[in-house]
Amino acid sequence: MIGPELERLIHLLAKLPGLGPRSARRAALELLKKREQLLQPLAAALTEADDKLVTCPVCHNLDVQSPCGICQDPQRENDLLCVVEDVADLWALERTRAFKGRYHVLGGVLSALAGITPQVLRIDKLVLRAREMQAREVLLALSATVDGQATAHFIADRLREDGIAATRLGHGMPVGGELDYLDEGTLMAALAARRVA
Amino acid sequence: MIGPELERLIHLLAKLPGLGPRSARRAALELLKKREQLLQPLAAALTEADDKLVTCPVCHNLDVQSPCGICQDPQRENDLLCVVEDVADLWALERTRAFKGRYHVLGGVLSALAGITPQVLRIDKLVLRAREMQAREVLLALSATVDGQATAHFIADRLREDGIAATRLGHGMPVGGELDYLDEGTLMAALAARRVA
Repeated sequence: MIGPELERLIHLLAKLPGLGPRSARRAALELLKKREQLLQPLAAALTEADDKLVTCPVCHNLDVQSPCGICQDPQRENDLLCVVEDVADLWALERTRAFKGRYHVLGGVLSALAGITPQVLRIDKLVLRAREMQAREVLLALSATVDGQATAHFIADRLREDGIAATRLGHGMPVGGELDYLDEGTLMAALAARRVA
Repeated sequence: MIGPELERLIHLLAKLPGLGPRSARRAALELLKKREQLLQPLAAALTEADDKLVTCPVCHNLDVQSPCGICQDPQRENDLLCVVEDVADLWALERTRAFKGRYHVLGGVLSALAGITPQVLRIDKLVLRAREMQAREVLLALSATVDGQATAHFIADRLREDGIAATRLGHGMPVGGELDYLDEGTLMAALAARRVA
């Protein structure tokens, strides 16, 4: 019933995170209904992004220039390095405008189950970079999951051998969060990190 | 921080049904990580679908041929017409392999709020087609929502003027459904439609 052209499009859309087979069908129909406003611009945007965006060889950020804009920015502190799991995390930190150092995108966290070893994440390269930068601080801005925290531990140990200080993000109550919705771990961390009002 | 190329891609992805701004960011990163397996094939599939798929001038189905494969199929009954809201509904019915007539894709349902009038849905054209086909039955396979049922009512009234019988899908318990999860309306309909076991 559905031809191979449409089948292929639905199959590829269903591979995007957040879309399943059913929503991929809906998305394909929506695209074919709005060809000029949506389908053709999306095809062009995909090709343009593929052509122009490159992975920065220094920090693994995505940008149109290589090295990326952050690595080339002379305004940023050269001895402060922030390690993130993914480019999306880098963007999230950049939106705060509160961090003025350099980044290093790890591309994942250690996971014995998924076979992500220190070699896969090229942690040696990160330690070497921190050493060459003479970093006074490496902020390990990794997820507060078991794998994320294990990875932070591993990197902090490696950095300690070189006498480089590693820090982590503070735990506590999310801004705008309601107290009785917090889990116990977060609430304990928020108590431990209490400050003079 | 995010360049205009990436911004445009994320903006377009966020317009797909099922993706919001956050999941569109994740999808864009996933696409840029898997360029050869996902991004480039998707761009090609979009362009191919745009080039090859056309809306059938008879029934408004999507197909590579015009009129569509169903309209051209000599095996199908010529006096049985099924009215659906969308191409996705046509696919759903085709997957059952239980309907052997022709289709008519309405492209929506009547909605006073959204300004969808009988003129917008070209119901005149549908009635004319049913008359020319000398349809013995028009199955109104529209959603069991207020707007869907109002549309079915409206079309059934118009067809009655031409002496054409309109039918609807049967209501009842979904196959595999559990009784105590059914809403009262469905349960009442299932009771009314009870059969000898």
